[in-house]
Amino acid sequence: MNVSMTLTALQGIPLIRPGDDLGEILWYALMSNGITLQDGDILVIAQKIVSKAEGRLVNLSEITPSAQAEELARLTSKDARFVELVLRESRAVLRYRPGTLIVEHRWGFVCANAGIDHSNVEGLYGNPEDWVLLLPEDPDASARRIRAALRERSGVNLGVLIIDSHGRAWRLGTVGVCIGVAGVPALVDLRGHPDLFGYQLRVTQVAAADELAAAASLIMGQADEKRPVVHVRGFPYPLRESSFSELRRPEEQDLFR
Amino acid sequence: MNVSMTLTALQGIPLIRPGDDLGEILWYALMSNGITLQDGDILVIAQKIVSKAEGRLVNLSEITPSAQAEELARLTSKDARFVELVLRESRAVLRYRPGTLIVEHRWGFVCANAGIDHSNVEGLYGNPEDWVLLLPEDPDASARRIRAALRERSGVNLGVLIIDSHGRAWRLGTVGVCIGVAGVPALVDLRGHPDLFGYQLRVTQVAAADELAAAASLIMGQADEKRPVVHVRGFPYPLRESSFSELRRPEEQDLFR
Repeated sequence: MNVSMTLTALQGIPLIRPGDDLGEILWYALMSNGITLQDGDILVIAQKIVSKAEGRLVNLSEITPSAQAEELARLTSKDARFVELVLRESRAVLRYRPGTLIVEHRWGFVCANAGIDHSNVEGLYGNPEDWVLLLPEDPDASARRIRAALRERSGVNLGVLIIDSHGRAWRLGTVGVCIGVAGVPALVDLRGHPDLFGYQLRVTQVAAADELAAAASLIMGQADEKRPVVHVRGFPYPLRESSFSELRRPEEQDLFR
Repeated sequence: MNVSMTLTALQGIPLIRPGDDLGEILWYALMSNGITLQDGDILVIAQKIVSKAEGRLVNLSEITPSAQAEELARLTSKDARFVELVLRESRAVLRYRPGTLIVEHRWGFVCANAGIDHSNVEGLYGNPEDWVLLLPEDPDASARRIRAALRERSGVNLGVLIIDSHGRAWRLGTVGVCIGVAGVPALVDLRGHPDLFGYQLRVTQVAAADELAAAASLIMGQADEKRPVVHVRGFPYPLRESSFSELRRPEEQDLFR
Protein backbone atom coordinates (compact mmCIF):
# COMPACT_ATOMS: atom_id res chain seq x y z
CA MET A 1 0.00 0.00 0.00
CA ASN A 2 1.17 3.48 -0.86
CA VAL A 3 2.39 5.34 2.19
CA SER A 4 2.93 8.80 0.77
CA MET A 5 0.35 11.18 -0.67
CA THR A 6 0.98 14.54 -2.29
CA LEU A 7 -1.65 17.22 -2.81
CA THR A 8 -0.87 20.04 -5.21
CA ALA A 9 -3.08 23.05 -5.84
CA LEU A 10 -3.19 23.90 -9.53
CA GLN A 11 -2.00 27.40 -10.34
CA GLY A 12 -3.60 29.70 -12.85
CA ILE A 13 -7.16 28.41 -12.95
CA PRO A 14 -9.08 31.25 -14.62
CA LEU A 15 -12.24 32.79 -13.19
CA ILE A 16 -15.00 30.40 -14.19
CA ARG A 17 -18.10 31.66 -16.01
CA PRO A 18 -21.42 30.00 -16.84
CA GLY A 19 -21.01 27.67 -19.79
CA ASP A 20 -17.30 27.12 -19.32
CA ASP A 21 -16.04 23.63 -20.18
CA LEU A 22 -14.43 22.57 -16.91
CA GLY A 23 -12.98 19.38 -18.36
CA GLU A 24 -11.08 21.38 -20.94
CA ILE A 25 -10.01 24.06 -18.47
CA LEU A 26 -8.70 21.46 -16.03
CA TRP A 27 -6.92 19.59 -18.79
CA TYR A 28 -4.98 22.68 -19.83
CA ALA A 29 -4.38 23.66 -16.19
CA LEU A 30 -2.80 20.26 -15.56
CA MET A 31 -0.54 20.76 -18.56
CA SER A 32 0.47 24.28 -17.59
CA ASN A 33 1.24 23.01 -14.08
CA GLY A 34 3.46 20.31 -15.55
CA ILE A 35 1.29 17.46 -14.24
CA THR A 36 0.83 14.33 -16.33
CA LEU A 37 -2.13 12.34 -15.00
CA GLN A 38 -1.40 8.79 -13.89
CA ASP A 39 -3.73 5.92 -13.07
CA GLY A 40 -5.11 6.42 -9.56
CA ASP A 41 -4.70 10.19 -9.52
CA ILE A 42 -7.59 12.25 -8.19
CA LEU A 43 -8.71 15.81 -8.87
CA VAL A 44 -10.52 17.53 -6.01
CA ILE A 45 -12.62 20.47 -7.15
CA ALA A 46 -14.29 23.21 -5.12
CA GLN A 47 -18.05 23.20 -5.76
CA LYS A 48 -18.07 26.91 -6.53
CA ILE A 49 -16.37 26.59 -9.86
CA VAL A 50 -18.52 23.60 -10.81
CA SER A 51 -21.67 25.51 -9.86
CA LYS A 52 -20.57 28.57 -11.82
CA ALA A 53 -19.68 26.58 -14.91
CA GLU A 54 -23.13 25.00 -14.70
CA GLY A 55 -24.78 28.41 -14.48
CA ARG A 56 -26.25 27.89 -11.02
CA LEU A 57 -26.40 31.63 -10.40
CA VAL A 58 -29.76 33.00 -9.31
CA ASN A 59 -30.80 36.63 -8.88
CA LEU A 60 -32.88 37.07 -5.75
CA SER A 61 -34.97 39.74 -7.44
CA GLU A 62 -36.55 36.96 -9.49
CA ILE A 63 -37.61 34.90 -6.47
CA THR A 64 -41.02 35.18 -4.82
CA PRO A 65 -40.91 33.75 -1.32
CA SER A 66 -43.62 31.44 -0.05
CA ALA A 67 -45.39 32.07 3.25
CA GLN A 68 -43.21 29.38 4.83
CA ALA A 69 -40.08 31.12 3.59
CA GLU A 70 -41.32 34.47 4.91
CA GLU A 71 -41.90 32.97 8.34
CA LEU A 72 -38.55 31.17 8.44
CA ALA A 73 -36.81 34.32 7.22
CA ARG A 74 -38.33 36.21 10.14
CA LEU A 75 -37.15 33.56 12.60
CA THR A 76 -33.61 33.45 11.16
CA SER A 77 -33.19 37.15 10.29
CA LYS A 78 -32.48 36.20 6.68
CA ASP A 79 -33.71 37.46 3.32
CA ALA A 80 -37.00 35.69 2.57
CA ARG A 81 -36.05 35.23 -1.10
CA PHE A 82 -32.81 33.57 0.00
CA VAL A 83 -34.71 31.33 2.42
CA GLU A 84 -37.12 30.43 -0.38
CA LEU A 85 -34.18 29.16 -2.45
CA VAL A 86 -32.81 27.25 0.55
CA LEU A 87 -36.18 25.53 1.00
CA ARG A 88 -36.40 24.64 -2.69
CA GLU A 89 -32.97 23.00 -2.44
CA SER A 90 -33.78 21.10 0.76
CA ARG A 91 -35.73 18.09 1.85
CA ALA A 92 -35.91 19.03 5.56
CA VAL A 93 -35.18 21.89 7.95
CA LEU A 94 -33.18 20.53 10.89
CA ARG A 95 -32.44 23.57 13.06
CA TYR A 96 -32.83 27.32 12.92
CA ARG A 97 -32.28 30.34 15.05
CA PRO A 98 -31.41 33.98 14.28
CA GLY A 99 -28.56 33.92 11.79
CA THR A 100 -28.53 30.13 11.36
CA LEU A 101 -30.50 27.76 9.13
CA ILE A 102 -29.40 24.11 9.00
CA VAL A 103 -31.11 21.91 6.43
CA GLU A 104 -30.80 18.57 4.79
CA HIS A 105 -30.05 19.30 1.16
CA ARG A 106 -32.13 17.32 -1.32
CA TRP A 107 -29.04 15.23 -2.09
CA GLY A 108 -28.77 14.25 1.55
CA PHE A 109 -26.00 16.30 3.08
CA VAL A 110 -26.72 18.41 6.12
CA CYS A 111 -25.37 21.93 5.98
CA ALA A 112 -26.16 25.60 6.50
CA ASN A 113 -28.33 27.36 3.88
CA ALA A 114 -28.36 24.33 1.55
CA GLY A 115 -24.88 25.35 0.49
CA ILE A 116 -26.13 28.54 -1.16
CA ASP A 117 -23.55 31.30 -0.98
CA HIS A 118 -23.31 34.98 -1.68
CA SER A 119 -19.59 35.34 -1.81
CA ASN A 120 -17.51 35.39 -4.98
CA VAL A 121 -20.52 35.71 -7.24
CA GLU A 122 -19.90 38.14 -10.06
CA GLY A 123 -23.18 39.92 -10.74
CA LEU A 124 -24.35 39.83 -14.31
CA TYR A 125 -26.81 42.71 -13.88
CA GLY A 126 -28.42 44.70 -11.09
CA ASN A 127 -27.30 44.65 -7.47
CA PRO A 128 -24.33 42.30 -7.06
CA GLU A 129 -25.60 41.45 -3.55
CA ASP A 130 -28.70 39.91 -5.15
CA TRP A 131 -26.76 37.16 -6.91
CA VAL A 132 -26.35 33.87 -5.16
CA LEU A 133 -24.85 30.56 -6.20
CA LEU A 134 -26.62 27.23 -5.70
CA LEU A 135 -24.80 23.92 -5.46
CA PRO A 136 -24.50 21.90 -8.67
CA GLU A 137 -27.81 20.43 -9.81
CA ASP A 138 -26.44 16.87 -9.35
CA PRO A 139 -22.91 16.87 -7.89
CA ASP A 140 -22.27 13.18 -8.59
CA ALA A 141 -23.24 13.71 -12.22
CA SER A 142 -20.97 16.76 -12.40
CA ALA A 143 -18.08 14.69 -11.06
CA ARG A 144 -18.81 11.93 -13.57
CA ARG A 145 -18.85 14.37 -16.49
CA ILE A 146 -15.53 15.94 -15.50
CA ARG A 147 -14.02 12.53 -14.91
CA ALA A 148 -15.17 11.30 -18.31
CA ALA A 149 -13.78 14.40 -20.04
CA LEU A 150 -10.37 14.00 -18.43
CA ARG A 151 -10.34 10.26 -18.91
CA GLU A 152 -11.00 10.68 -22.60
CA ARG A 153 -8.17 13.18 -22.95
CA SER A 154 -5.63 11.42 -20.74
CA GLY A 155 -6.49 7.77 -21.18
CA VAL A 156 -5.93 7.16 -17.47
CA ASN A 157 -8.27 5.98 -14.74
CA LEU A 158 -8.64 8.97 -12.43
CA GLY A 159 -11.08 9.99 -9.73
CA VAL A 160 -12.94 13.27 -9.27
CA LEU A 161 -14.23 14.69 -6.00
CA ILE A 162 -16.42 17.79 -5.66
CA ILE A 163 -16.19 19.34 -2.23
CA ASP A 164 -17.69 22.06 -0.09
CA SER A 165 -16.88 23.38 3.39
CA HIS A 166 -19.33 22.49 6.13
CA GLY A 167 -19.67 23.25 9.80
CA ARG A 168 -20.03 20.35 12.19
CA ALA A 169 -21.96 19.43 15.30
CA TRP A 170 -19.87 19.72 18.50
CA ARG A 171 -16.81 21.27 16.89
CA LEU A 172 -16.02 24.76 15.71
CA GLY A 173 -14.64 25.54 12.30
CA THR A 174 -15.48 24.27 8.85
CA VAL A 175 -13.93 21.25 7.13
CA GLY A 176 -13.93 20.17 3.52
CA VAL A 177 -16.45 17.43 2.79
CA CYS A 178 -17.43 15.45 -0.27
CA ILE A 179 -20.68 16.44 -1.99
CA GLY A 180 -20.10 14.67 -5.31
CA VAL A 181 -17.81 11.87 -6.36
CA ALA A 182 -16.82 9.80 -9.37
CA GLY A 183 -14.32 6.97 -9.22
CA VAL A 184 -13.20 7.57 -5.62
CA PRO A 185 -14.52 5.18 -2.95
CA ALA A 186 -16.67 7.33 -0.66
CA LEU A 187 -16.59 4.72 2.11
CA VAL A 188 -13.85 2.17 2.61
CA ASP A 189 -15.08 -0.86 4.45
CA LEU A 190 -12.67 -2.21 7.05
CA ARG A 191 -15.17 -4.46 8.78
CA GLY A 192 -13.71 -7.79 9.70
CA HIS A 193 -10.09 -6.82 9.25
CA PRO A 194 -8.33 -8.44 12.19
CA ASP A 195 -6.16 -6.24 14.34
CA LEU A 196 -2.60 -7.19 15.31
CA PHE A 197 -3.71 -9.64 17.99
CA GLY A 198 -6.42 -11.33 15.98
CA TYR A 199 -9.47 -9.60 17.45
CA GLN A 200 -12.11 -8.17 15.20
CA LEU A 201 -11.72 -4.48 14.54
CA ARG A 202 -14.54 -2.48 16.16
CA VAL A 203 -14.25 0.46 13.79
CA THR A 204 -16.24 -0.33 10.71
CA GLN A 205 -16.02 2.08 7.82
CA VAL A 206 -13.74 4.95 6.91
CA ALA A 207 -15.17 7.98 5.09
CA ALA A 208 -12.22 8.11 2.72
CA ALA A 209 -13.82 10.66 0.37
CA ASP A 210 -14.45 13.03 3.27
CA GLU A 211 -10.92 12.59 4.57
CA LEU A 212 -9.58 13.42 1.14
CA ALA A 213 -11.95 16.39 0.85
CA ALA A 214 -10.61 17.75 4.14
CA ALA A 215 -7.04 17.27 3.01
CA ALA A 216 -7.59 19.11 -0.26
CA SER A 217 -9.62 21.86 1.38
CA LEU A 218 -6.65 22.59 3.61
CA ILE A 219 -4.52 23.70 0.71
CA MET A 220 -7.30 25.30 -1.31
CA GLY A 221 -7.80 28.00 1.29
CA GLN A 222 -11.15 29.72 1.33
CA ALA A 223 -10.72 33.45 0.97
CA ASP A 224 -10.74 33.42 -2.81
CA GLU A 225 -10.94 31.16 -5.80
CA LYS A 226 -7.31 31.16 -6.67
CA ARG A 227 -6.80 27.50 -5.76
CA PRO A 228 -10.10 25.72 -6.47
CA VAL A 229 -8.51 22.53 -7.87
CA VAL A 230 -6.16 20.13 -6.13
CA HIS A 231 -4.32 17.25 -7.75
CA VAL A 232 -3.81 14.20 -5.52
CA ARG A 233 -1.25 11.48 -6.06
CA GLY A 234 -0.92 8.56 -3.68
CA PHE A 235 -4.52 8.05 -2.56
CA PRO A 236 -4.09 4.77 -0.70
CA TYR A 237 -7.20 2.88 -1.86
CA PRO A 238 -8.13 1.48 -5.26
CA LEU A 239 -10.45 3.63 -7.34
CA ARG A 240 -13.94 2.28 -8.01
CA GLU A 241 -17.41 3.47 -8.98
CA SER A 242 -18.96 5.40 -6.13
CA SER A 243 -21.62 7.91 -5.14
CA PHE A 244 -22.17 10.52 -2.44
CA SER A 245 -25.09 8.43 -1.23
CA GLU A 246 -22.63 6.02 0.40
CA LEU A 247 -21.86 8.76 2.92
CA ARG A 248 -25.42 9.65 3.80
CA ARG A 249 -26.42 8.33 7.21
CA PRO A 250 -29.97 7.00 6.99
CA GLU A 251 -32.34 9.08 9.10
CA GLU A 252 -33.25 6.11 11.30
CA GLN A 253 -29.57 5.56 12.16
CA ASP A 254 -28.96 9.22 12.98
CA LEU A 255 -29.14 10.11 16.65
CA PHE A 256 -28.45 13.79 16.01
CA ARG A 257 -31.18 15.11 13.74
CA MET B 1 1.59 30.46 0.36
CA ASN B 2 2.70 26.89 -0.12
CA VAL B 3 0.49 25.07 -2.60
CA SER B 4 1.75 21.53 -2.24
CA MET B 5 1.58 19.26 0.80
CA THR B 6 3.08 15.81 1.18
CA LEU B 7 2.09 13.29 3.82
CA THR B 8 4.40 10.34 4.43
CA ALA B 9 3.68 7.47 6.79
CA LEU B 10 6.80 6.48 8.71
CA GLN B 11 7.84 2.88 8.22
CA GLY B 12 9.12 0.59 10.92
CA ILE B 13 7.55 2.13 14.03
CA PRO B 14 7.91 -0.65 16.64
CA LEU B 15 5.02 -1.91 18.76
CA ILE B 16 4.73 0.62 21.57
CA ARG B 17 4.74 -0.49 25.21
CA PRO B 18 3.99 1.36 28.45
CA GLY B 19 6.90 3.55 29.43
CA ASP B 20 8.33 3.86 25.94
CA ASP B 21 9.90 7.21 25.10
CA LEU B 22 7.90 8.28 22.06
CA GLY B 23 10.08 11.31 21.37
CA GLU B 24 13.11 9.09 21.05
CA ILE B 25 11.29 6.44 19.02
CA LEU B 26 9.97 9.04 16.58
CA TRP B 27 13.36 10.68 16.29
CA TYR B 28 14.99 7.43 15.25
CA ALA B 29 12.06 6.55 12.98
CA LEU B 30 12.48 9.86 11.17
CA MET B 31 16.17 9.10 10.68
CA SER B 32 15.58 5.55 9.48
CA ASN B 33 12.97 6.91 7.03
CA GLY B 34 15.50 9.38 5.70
CA ILE B 35 13.50 12.42 6.83
CA THR B 36 15.30 15.50 8.13
CA LEU B 37 12.84 17.73 9.97
CA GLN B 38 12.45 21.27 8.64
CA ASP B 39 10.80 24.31 10.18
CA GLY B 40 7.05 24.04 9.69
CA ASP B 41 6.94 20.24 9.47
CA ILE B 42 4.25 18.43 11.43
CA LEU B 43 4.07 14.94 12.88
CA VAL B 44 0.59 13.45 13.14
CA ILE B 45 0.39 10.63 15.66
CA ALA B 46 -2.37 8.09 16.23
CA GLN B 47 -3.63 8.33 19.82
CA LYS B 48 -3.21 4.61 20.38
CA ILE B 49 0.55 4.67 20.50
CA VAL B 50 0.53 7.76 22.72
CA SER B 51 -1.94 6.11 25.09
CA LYS B 52 0.09 2.92 25.21
CA ALA B 53 3.36 4.72 25.85
CA GLU B 54 1.62 6.53 28.69
CA GLY B 55 0.40 3.25 30.16
CA ARG B 56 -3.31 4.02 29.75
CA LEU B 57 -4.16 0.32 29.74
CA VAL B 58 -6.83 -0.78 32.21
CA ASN B 59 -7.94 -4.30 33.06
CA LEU B 60 -11.70 -4.48 33.37
CA SER B 61 -11.41 -7.07 36.14
CA GLU B 62 -10.21 -4.27 38.40
CA ILE B 63 -13.22 -2.04 37.76
CA THR B 64 -16.33 -2.03 39.95
CA PRO B 65 -19.23 -0.46 38.07
CA SER B 66 -21.50 2.07 39.75
CA ALA B 67 -25.27 1.69 39.72
CA GLN B 68 -25.43 4.28 36.93
CA ALA B 69 -22.95 2.27 34.87
CA GLU B 70 -24.92 -0.94 35.46
CA GLU B 71 -28.11 0.74 34.23
CA LEU B 72 -26.46 2.30 31.19
CA ALA B 73 -24.77 -1.02 30.39
CA ARG B 74 -28.18 -2.68 30.38
CA LEU B 75 -29.57 -0.01 28.04
CA THR B 76 -26.61 -0.21 25.65
CA SER B 77 -25.90 -3.98 25.86
CA LYS B 78 -22.34 -3.20 26.94
CA ASP B 79 -20.06 -4.50 29.70
CA ALA B 80 -20.88 -2.53 32.87
CA ARG B 81 -17.19 -2.27 33.79
CA PHE B 82 -16.46 -0.79 30.38
CA VAL B 83 -19.35 1.66 30.75
CA GLU B 84 -18.00 2.63 34.17
CA LEU B 85 -14.70 3.61 32.56
CA VAL B 86 -16.53 5.53 29.84
CA LEU B 87 -18.44 7.49 32.47
CA ARG B 88 -15.27 8.25 34.42
CA GLU B 89 -13.71 9.66 31.24
CA SER B 90 -16.78 11.74 30.31
CA ARG B 91 -18.48 14.92 31.36
CA ALA B 92 -21.86 14.13 29.76
CA VAL B 93 -23.78 11.32 28.08
CA LEU B 94 -25.29 12.64 24.85
CA ARG B 95 -27.05 9.65 23.30
CA TYR B 96 -27.36 5.93 23.87
CA ARG B 97 -29.15 2.96 22.47
CA PRO B 98 -28.32 -0.74 22.23
CA GLY B 99 -24.76 -1.00 20.95
CA THR B 100 -24.10 2.76 20.98
CA LEU B 101 -22.95 5.16 23.68
CA ILE B 102 -22.07 8.74 22.63
CA VAL B 103 -20.50 10.94 25.26
CA GLU B 104 -18.69 14.20 25.65
CA HIS B 105 -15.20 13.28 26.79
CA ARG B 106 -13.92 15.31 29.74
CA TRP B 107 -11.61 17.14 27.32
CA GLY B 108 -14.60 18.25 25.29
CA PHE B 109 -14.73 16.07 22.20
CA VAL B 110 -17.88 14.13 21.43
CA CYS B 111 -17.35 10.50 20.49
CA ALA B 112 -18.42 6.93 21.07
CA ASN B 113 -17.28 5.23 24.29
CA ALA B 114 -15.07 8.17 25.33
CA GLY B 115 -12.53 6.87 22.84
CA ILE B 116 -11.89 3.71 24.88
CA ASP B 117 -10.98 0.80 22.68
CA HIS B 118 -10.50 -2.90 22.96
CA SER B 119 -8.63 -3.53 19.78
CA ASN B 120 -4.85 -3.85 19.53
CA VAL B 121 -4.32 -4.05 23.26
CA GLU B 122 -1.73 -6.62 24.20
CA GLY B 123 -2.82 -8.20 27.47
CA LEU B 124 -0.28 -8.14 30.24
CA TYR B 125 -2.04 -10.85 32.29
CA GLY B 126 -5.38 -12.61 32.42
CA ASN B 127 -8.00 -12.50 29.68
CA PRO B 128 -6.77 -10.33 26.79
CA GLU B 129 -10.39 -9.27 26.15
CA ASP B 130 -10.39 -7.58 29.57
CA TRP B 131 -7.74 -5.05 28.60
CA VAL B 132 -8.86 -1.72 27.25
CA LEU B 133 -7.00 1.42 26.30
CA LEU B 134 -8.08 4.88 27.46
CA LEU B 135 -7.20 8.07 25.60
CA PRO B 136 -4.11 9.95 26.83
CA GLU B 137 -4.62 11.60 30.21
CA ASP B 138 -4.12 15.06 28.66
CA PRO B 139 -3.69 14.89 24.86
CA ASP B 140 -2.52 18.50 24.48
CA ALA B 141 0.14 17.89 27.12
CA SER B 142 1.19 14.68 25.35
CA ALA B 143 1.55 16.61 22.09
CA ARG B 144 3.57 19.32 23.82
CA ARG B 145 5.93 16.77 25.37
CA ILE B 146 6.56 15.02 22.06
CA ARG B 147 7.02 18.35 20.32
CA ALA B 148 9.51 19.52 22.93
CA ALA B 149 11.49 16.28 22.67
CA LEU B 150 11.75 16.50 18.89
CA ARG B 151 12.42 20.22 18.96
CA GLU B 152 15.30 19.69 21.34
CA ARG B 153 16.83 16.99 19.16
CA SER B 154 16.22 18.66 15.80
CA GLY B 155 16.43 22.35 16.61
CA VAL B 156 13.49 23.05 14.29
CA ASN B 157 10.06 24.51 14.95
CA LEU B 158 7.69 21.63 14.28
CA GLY B 159 4.08 20.87 15.14
CA VAL B 160 2.56 17.74 16.66
CA LEU B 161 -1.01 16.53 16.26
CA ILE B 162 -2.57 13.60 18.14
CA ILE B 163 -5.57 12.18 16.33
CA ASP B 164 -8.34 9.66 16.71
CA SER B 165 -11.08 8.42 14.37
CA HIS B 166 -14.60 9.58 15.16
CA GLY B 167 -18.01 8.98 13.70
CA ARG B 168 -20.10 12.00 12.73
CA ALA B 169 -23.67 13.17 12.88
CA TRP B 170 -25.50 12.87 9.52
CA ARG B 171 -22.70 11.05 7.67
CA LEU B 172 -21.53 7.47 7.68
CA GLY B 173 -17.93 6.46 8.18
CA THR B 174 -15.24 7.66 10.52
CA VAL B 175 -12.79 10.48 9.89
CA GLY B 176 -9.56 11.41 11.60
CA VAL B 177 -9.95 14.30 14.05
CA CYS B 178 -7.61 16.21 16.30
CA ILE B 179 -7.75 15.37 20.01
CA GLY B 180 -4.46 16.97 21.05
CA VAL B 181 -2.24 19.58 19.45
CA ALA B 182 1.00 21.46 19.96
CA GLY B 183 2.26 24.12 17.61
CA VAL B 184 -0.38 23.59 14.91
CA PRO B 185 -3.18 26.16 14.66
CA ALA B 186 -6.37 24.24 15.51
CA LEU B 187 -8.58 26.94 13.99
CA VAL B 188 -7.50 29.32 11.27
CA ASP B 189 -9.48 32.52 11.34
CA LEU B 190 -10.49 33.82 7.92
CA ARG B 191 -13.00 36.35 9.20
CA GLY B 192 -12.80 39.61 7.34
CA HIS B 193 -10.73 38.38 4.44
CA PRO B 194 -12.33 39.99 1.42
CA ASP B 195 -13.35 37.74 -1.40
CA LEU B 196 -12.46 38.45 -5.02
CA PHE B 197 -15.16 41.05 -5.46
CA GLY B 198 -14.58 42.90 -2.24
CA TYR B 199 -17.43 41.46 -0.17
CA GLN B 200 -16.84 40.10 3.29
CA LEU B 201 -16.34 36.36 3.38
CA ARG B 202 -19.28 34.63 5.10
CA VAL B 203 -17.29 31.55 6.13
CA THR B 204 -15.51 32.37 9.33
CA GLN B 205 -13.08 29.79 10.64
CA VAL B 206 -11.41 26.72 9.20
CA ALA B 207 -10.72 23.73 11.44
CA ALA B 208 -7.24 23.30 10.02
CA ALA B 209 -6.13 20.76 12.64
CA ASP B 210 -9.12 18.56 11.89
CA GLU B 211 -8.52 18.82 8.15
CA LEU B 212 -4.93 17.76 8.68
CA ALA B 213 -6.03 14.96 11.02
CA ALA B 214 -8.35 13.64 8.30
CA ALA B 215 -5.59 13.83 5.71
CA ALA B 216 -3.13 11.90 7.86
CA SER B 217 -5.73 9.37 8.94
CA LEU B 218 -6.29 8.53 5.30
CA ILE B 219 -2.80 7.16 4.88
CA MET B 220 -2.47 5.68 8.36
CA GLY B 221 -5.16 3.10 7.65
CA GLN B 222 -6.91 1.64 10.63
CA ALA B 223 -6.67 -2.11 10.65
CA ASP B 224 -3.37 -2.24 12.45
CA GLU B 225 -0.71 -0.08 14.02
CA LYS B 226 1.81 -0.36 11.25
CA ARG B 227 1.51 3.29 10.19
CA PRO B 228 0.67 5.26 13.34
CA VAL B 229 2.86 8.27 12.50
CA VAL B 230 2.63 10.56 9.49
CA HIS B 231 5.12 13.25 8.57
CA VAL B 232 3.62 16.35 6.90
CA ARG B 233 5.52 18.86 4.83
CA GLY B 234 3.79 21.84 3.28
CA PHE B 235 1.09 22.65 5.84
CA PRO B 236 -0.10 25.97 4.44
CA TYR B 237 -0.46 28.00 7.64
CA PRO B 238 2.17 29.34 10.05
CA LEU B 239 2.73 27.25 13.17
CA ARG B 240 1.71 28.81 16.49
CA GLU B 241 0.80 27.82 20.04
CA SER B 242 -2.56 26.11 20.09
CA SER B 243 -4.88 23.82 22.02
CA PHE B 244 -7.68 21.38 21.30
CA SER B 245 -10.00 23.70 23.19
CA GLU B 246 -10.08 26.00 20.14
CA LEU B 247 -12.09 23.31 18.35
CA ARG B 248 -14.65 22.71 21.08
CA ARG B 249 -18.01 24.22 20.24
CA PRO B 250 -19.45 25.78 23.40
CA GLU B 251 -22.56 23.95 24.53
CA GLU B 252 -24.74 27.05 24.18
CA GLN B 253 -23.68 27.38 20.52
CA ASP B 254 -24.33 23.72 19.73
CA LEU B 255 -27.69 22.99 18.14
CA PHE B 256 -27.04 19.24 18.00
CA ARG B 257 -26.48 18.02 21.55
